[in-house]
Amino acid sequence: MKGVILGINSAARIVDLTHEIPPGDLRGGAFALATSFRFFPKGTVHLAVVDPGVGTARRAIAVKTSRFFFVGPDNGVLSWALAREDIVAIHELQNTAFFLRPVSRTFHGRDVFAPAAAHLSRGVPLRRLGPALEEIVRLPWPEPRRAGDQLRGEVVYVDRFGNAITNIDPGALGRFSGAGFRVFRQGKRLCDVAECYAAVAAGHAVAIMGSTGFLEIAVNGGNASRQLNLPVGTVVSVRCR
Amino acid sequence: MKGVILGINSAARIVDLTHEIPPGDLRGGAFALATSFRFFPKGTVHLAVVDPGVGTARRAIAVKTSRFFFVGPDNGVLSWALAREDIVAIHELQNTAFFLRPVSRTFHGRDVFAPAAAHLSRGVPLRRLGPALEEIVRLPWPEPRRAGDQLRGEVVYVDRFGNAITNIDPGALGRFSGAGFRVFRQGKRLCDVAECYAAVAAGHAVAIMGSTGFLEIAVNGGNASRQLNLPVGTVVSVRCR
Amino acid sequence: MKGVILGINSAARIVDLTHEIPPGDLRGGAFALATSFRFFPKGTVHLAVVDPGVGTARRAIAVKTSRFFFVGPDNGVLSWALAREDIVAIHELQNTAFFLRPVSRTFHGRDVFAPAAAHLSRGVPLRRLGPALEEIVRLPWPEPRRAGDQLRGEVVYVDRFGNAITNIDPGALGRFSGAGFRVFRQGKRLCDVAECYAAVAAGHAVAIMGSTGFLEIAVNGGNASRQLNLPVGTVVSVRCR
Repeated sequence: MKGVILGINSAARIVDLTHEIPPGDLRGGAFALATSFRFFPKGTVHLAVVDPGVGTARRAIAVKTSRFFFVGPDNGVLSWALAREDIVAIHELQNTAFFLRPVSRTFHGRDVFAPAAAHLSRGVPLRRLGPALEEIVRLPWPEPRRAGDQLRGEVVYVDRFGNAITNIDPGALGRFSGAGFRVFRQGKRLCDVAECYAAVAAGHAVAIMGSTGFLEIAVNGGNASRQLNLPVGTVVSVRCR
Repeated sequence: MKGVILGINSAARIVDLTHEIPPGDLRGGAFALATSFRFFPKGTVHLAVVDPGVGTARRAIAVKTSRFFFVGPDNGVLSWALAREDIVAIHELQNTAFFLRPVSRTFHGRDVFAPAAAHLSRGVPLRRLGPALEEIVRLPWPEPRRAGDQLRGEVVYVDRFGNAITNIDPGALGRFSGAGFRVFRQGKRLCDVAECYAAVAAGHAVAIMGSTGFLEIAVNGGNASRQLNLPVGTVVSVRCR
Repeated sequence: MKGVILGINSAARIVDLTHEIPPGDLRGGAFALATSFRFFPKGTVHLAVVDPGVGTARRAIAVKTSRFFFVGPDNGVLSWALAREDIVAIHELQNTAFFLRPVSRTFHGRDVFAPAAAHLSRGVPLRRLGPALEEIVRLPWPEPRRAGDQLRGEVVYVDRFGNAITNIDPGALGRFSGAGFRVFRQGKRLCDVAECYAAVAAGHAVAIMGSTGFLEIAVNGGNASRQLNLPVGTVVSVRCR
């Protein structure tokens, strides 16, 4: 993909967002993109190819927002990022003049998406890549739910440190006040909410409002997901202490 | 290696082809290079250092083809790529003026190959790096063999999705016709040949003519090499249905 | 971090030193930096963020030496590199005008260190980032010790090949003379010192003066740390044969 991009735009600056999305993990890719894209310079072309349906009828799209371009399969991988953006236009990648040819059946990253991203980075107008679309496929975002005195959420991502990142953001938590909360799983206390990993002794669990903007459960110096058995999908709840 | 390259050519654009070649895996490195190099822009310097014999008498070489440069140890790692190229000249890296000094005994990637690649990228003529050679060391390529109504090949590479890529290309398969073939191992049917991974239900096996240009065995949403026990070297055969 | 850097200095050239430092491994990060930084061009900004104490009172620093800049937490991760450099000035990163805001509690790599490194790469004077400091926190370096006819050292790093790199350098070993030494663990012979990995048969152990400048224990074609059980901290001794 990088060779193809540099062949089209030799001045392109290419950054790998992560090497750690498991094969086919749409939600993992969508979360990594959604929590990172806004830290890149205005005008960045965000190219995301988690594409288990490559070769089927799923569409290939490019999206222009007020600040960025996004390119990828229309399977939801872009949707959590786009939910935070003002969408200006969506186009389907149909113009084969902008494909690498022959197009393989199984690597549209190289043959369809990388060329589209490279052409956009050179200033090719989005509309030249194919016809306009009205909507994209959206992955459902698991909204945390309030139930009595607790807020129920779930683990949506595990980062390379083993931190179990939930769908609970400060908005959902009401006005977030540092040390006032406690995290439970199936009614049993997991840990308290604190300000940083080192707020607890080494090897102990702690929840913090993390750098992704979501509540995450960590073990100071350890791997929370593994040590506390907190894979993606684990339901957790938060209550005032 | 990258620091050394940028010290010689601060305008060099450096791309990592892969982080996943196991230590010392000459054939893995040769296959990754052979199936990727042509997607890079004309003039790219391809630097490949799988070098278990570093410090012994194996030669260090740079090769100019009609489109690219290749730099690496003369142990075959470049040979599968070069088999597809028109070789213009081969030179041995002997001119110590282009080495980083002192040269370590165990990291010629940093001390010999990276400097050579960087100097070539700046336009230093190949002949200045050392004397011309007539031939390079070539890794044998396991040609698939026809036997009666079947074509016997083997797994030559496993990619990060666990897809087991064979040495069978459309040429060997006669005129390739999508769904007309079936893949066997030791006489037992493994899967049919289809057009894309999602042609079968999740968890099922399928063979496709993959993006490397070779027949590969996949599990839709899974890891074929692990689930079906298909490591490099596994013999498979293809027959018409 | 890379997005933030490119937003501040779109001409920055960013190189990843390694993807293989385990989370929180200060000594691993310090060793990787100390054995690599000098191969980069003069003026390089070295940014190292192994930062288990993020959010606590540990300081954030930037250091100017006669050849480079170094940016990171003041927890020792920079100290083994800086022990080999002429320090010109040390400043604490306190000027919030150079931070990304809001500053998270847990990702100062993105919010504090990456912006500082990017501003330095654009020529912002070090003193503008915050007040001068006299000293940095230094990780103790385990000096090898001479005891009778032997030199006792320890494994300080395991590289991706499984080579067990020790703290023993040619200076400690007296005048290093290729094949004249033998390596022991708990009185039992591990291997001899030779010139290159392939000096012994495949699968056999050998010690070499490696590319980091330290004695390392390898298995030709294998993984010494795993096969010989040589994790970081293992005590080894060297004697003349």
